[in-house]
Amino acid sequence: MSELRTVGLLGAGVIGGGWAARFLLAGVDVRLYDPSPAAAETALQTVERARRAWRRLTLAPLPAEGRLQLVDSVPDAVAGVDLVQESAPEREDLKRDLLAEASRAAPPEAIIATSTSGLLPSRLARGMTHPERFVVGHPFNPVYLLPLVEVCGSDQTSPETVTRAADVYRGVGMRPLIVRREIDGFIADRLLEALWREALWLVADDVATVQEVDDAIRFGAGLRWSAMGTFLTYRLAGGTAGMRHFMAQFGPALQLPWTRLTDVPELDEALLDKIVEQSDAQADGRSVADLERLRDDCLVAVLRGLAGTGFAAGEVIADTERTLYERAGDGALPPLDDGRLRLHEVLVAPAWIDYNGHMTESRYLEVLADTTDAFLRRIGILGPYIDTGRSYYTVETHIRHLGEAHAGDRLVVATRLLGHDAKRLHLFHELTRAEDAAVIATGEHMLLHVDRNEGRTVPAPDEILAVLDEIAESQRDLPWPEGAGNRVNGPRAAA
Amino acid sequence: MSELRTVGLLGAGVIGGGWAARFLLAGVDVRLYDPSPAAAETALQTVERARRAWRRLTLAPLPAEGRLQLVDSVPDAVAGVDLVQESAPEREDLKRDLLAEASRAAPPEAIIATSTSGLLPSRLARGMTHPERFVVGHPFNPVYLLPLVEVCGSDQTSPETVTRAADVYRGVGMRPLIVRREIDGFIADRLLEALWREALWLVADDVATVQEVDDAIRFGAGLRWSAMGTFLTYRLAGGTAGMRHFMAQFGPALQLPWTRLTDVPELDEALLDKIVEQSDAQADGRSVADLERLRDDCLVAVLRGLAGTGFAAGEVIADTERTLYERAGDGALPPLDDGRLRLHEVLVAPAWIDYNGHMTESRYLEVLADTTDAFLRRIGILGPYIDTGRSYYTVETHIRHLGEAHAGDRLVVATRLLGHDAKRLHLFHELTRAEDAAVIATGEHMLLHVDRNEGRTVPAPDEILAVLDEIAESQRDLPWPEGAGNRVNGPRAAA
Repeated sequence: MSELRTVGLLGAGVIGGGWAARFLLAGVDVRLYDPSPAAAETALQTVERARRAWRRLTLAPLPAEGRLQLVDSVPDAVAGVDLVQESAPEREDLKRDLLAEASRAAPPEAIIATSTSGLLPSRLARGMTHPERFVVGHPFNPVYLLPLVEVCGSDQTSPETVTRAADVYRGVGMRPLIVRREIDGFIADRLLEALWREALWLVADDVATVQEVDDAIRFGAGLRWSAMGTFLTYRLAGGTAGMRHFMAQFGPALQLPWTRLTDVPELDEALLDKIVEQSDAQADGRSVADLERLRDDCLVAVLRGLAGTGFAAGEVIADTERTLYERAGDGALPPLDDGRLRLHEVLVAPAWIDYNGHMTESRYLEVLADTTDAFLRRIGILGPYIDTGRSYYTVETHIRHLGEAHAGDRLVVATRLLGHDAKRLHLFHELTRAEDAAVIATGEHMLLHVDRNEGRTVPAPDEILAVLDEIAESQRDLPWPEGAGNRVNGPRAAA
Repeated sequence: MSELRTVGLLGAGVIGGGWAARFLLAGVDVRLYDPSPAAAETALQTVERARRAWRRLTLAPLPAEGRLQLVDSVPDAVAGVDLVQESAPEREDLKRDLLAEASRAAPPEAIIATSTSGLLPSRLARGMTHPERFVVGHPFNPVYLLPLVEVCGSDQTSPETVTRAADVYRGVGMRPLIVRREIDGFIADRLLEALWREALWLVADDVATVQEVDDAIRFGAGLRWSAMGTFLTYRLAGGTAGMRHFMAQFGPALQLPWTRLTDVPELDEALLDKIVEQSDAQADGRSVADLERLRDDCLVAVLRGLAGTGFAAGEVIADTERTLYERAGDGALPPLDDGRLRLHEVLVAPAWIDYNGHMTESRYLEVLADTTDAFLRRIGILGPYIDTGRSYYTVETHIRHLGEAHAGDRLVVATRLLGHDAKRLHLFHELTRAEDAAVIATGEHMLLHVDRNEGRTVPAPDEILAVLDEIAESQRDLPWPEGAGNRVNGPRAAA
């Protein structure tokens, strides 16, 4: 929103502070009022947290931050602003008085918005001048990260105000959801409140603890909800038969005592037709197979992302990976006749092909590095040993591309231990295509044995060195491989 | 579960197929029975989808896949197996008959589990022999990706069965949630069902369409739910004042008509105390600030992951980034003061981190190769030129690892043209961390200009060579970079 220069924020709690952060990071000046002196400090911490999050979220160039001004009164906060955003506690009388005062002091063309989670705008507007420019703009915590903002007018709100407010929010990176008609709780909080009420019953009835309720969400449906809402999710639960099949299959559950909230809508033909029709529109011609692939891509992205945090489902992924490494053990295939090790083979995936029509170069290193990992498993590094804080780190790699790999090729790798000492490991992998034994690439790799906790190289323990000695002995008579020990020869010689 | 060798699956629909995929990918043999001939085909497609997802989910070595055997009867499916998993449609009579038949044919020590979403195990067990080894194992679609499985026994189920079943599921990468007592809908589906019932009301009352309901979830609370459940989320909504403050602030909303489901629990002191106490236990000494940072890290990881898919909140991030780049102008970065080119920078994604806790080596080459691509764009190769069948192919790469890159690090690359002639291109990239200018790695790359159609190297055209001459001229006075032209030095010299 190039037009949005200054916003006036009323309330600097969790939501008001989040708004301050979102607007400031979008380059908008903020005038912030809160009666509590501590609130401003909290808001500043929120802004700092938002900066940290956005630095990690995107590489795109963020604009110069807006200026934050802490002010002492409502009129000071709203004077000359383009948008007033009220985020006071959820008490109708309190909000009504604040909004009335703001409406008298703000420029008459300024949008006045409330962050209420579910109070009715027509009631909140009762003391306002120019109620036609009043609208709900309901965000979600943390406001600086979550895109959703519900936009809902009262019967007095002008359609232009709704459009302008949606544009303003979109301009600071949000996704406005226009609520068709005024209703308590709007859309999102009605859903949240239903789930919350059932969650309270589960705890009240001692069916589950708060931790168990949370686990029931974050290890299951919560992962799906990060990408798809409940209707699209259930469309897929119906399999290829789609939404009508799902409704037929699960509709009867509406009559079961599956929640304490039993005041259910009647699933008559009219409602069924409406849902199926809207669900078809939502799928927009995409087949269930397409949607399933999309869902899986989203889940993989979310799970992979969480794996980096080690929290929630990410902890499960991390545990699973640890187990997989342990079970793979030394994973050894019998060595080749010449004594080289067979540690890894792989099918070239279609996604690995680049604009030149063959396997893109980073995938060569992926295959080579996976082979190095298999070698490290073989000699006892990957597995419980790595939990001691010691490991081998690759410090140098030399790849020679000798042929092209295409989608569907099966690549097999033969591994030489070129040399080792107490701290060093020098490997040479030769990557050939299984069908015609053509050499596709070679990889030469130098690794150092390090102690992560000490942050330096240390000698590998005797039992590891003994395995390396044994492998070296078994490969003693092999000739030095062609291409090993070479440097990259350029058109201009090293100075 | 080293003990788990073979499972018998009854039903090959969405859930049964998902079980087949999870077990097979975990190396467990599967005997699959479904009365519908089409079901087996669908299950095979599910397995293929699961393979694709897991290949993208983890770098860890997956075990050799289990064998899938399609069988023609219930006794065939359960003969000699360690676990029977029934996933028939949600009809009590149908499931009861199936389970009874399975219990007669399965080994008496085999666990017999049902995938029911919410039917009571004590009712399902009525026709079974050895009902003490019967248990609910309720998974979530897609079964091969979502970790959650609810484990719930009947009053006849032995505690040992519950423990064994949980171990079995944990052994195939799941997160069992043991349900304390038998209840319709268990825990997860009670929550899902409450939200679902409200969602149906919203559509029935024409407050929102199914798309709008879904948007209200996936752009807001759904993102939070992927990492934190509703109680921990609300603990944070209370700000530093925590759970009691939140309950005091939002408790009154329970009396508001914020859902159609108004049969709410009474929020008396006893319930309040229980919730606060359990919430404190859940926070486990972590401060609100710590939890907020954790939440933000999870949200960033999830949003960044979704950005890669371009779907749901990922679309919002992509839109925001497009706008940010547009606003920032043409974005061509000026060269560095010393004349090296600035062509590429990147944020280290959480998914790029390996078992050593830093960026895995193939990602270094990905960043370096992306920089080479940016160089090729700069000199006019990538674009219409490549459609002529000519391009540069990398033939040799030398990477030196000089530091560690961690998730969230911003890496910037400085590029030297070390040399070129009519057919050859010799590049040197230096990869530094933006925050502290530490050199993380260097990449030295030799490329040849090839004609794909002729299958051989050919001279590059004059206009390309002119651009290369110009870049070389601008970098003429730069010293030969340290580490360029080196070979990998091993503990054993080249013969």
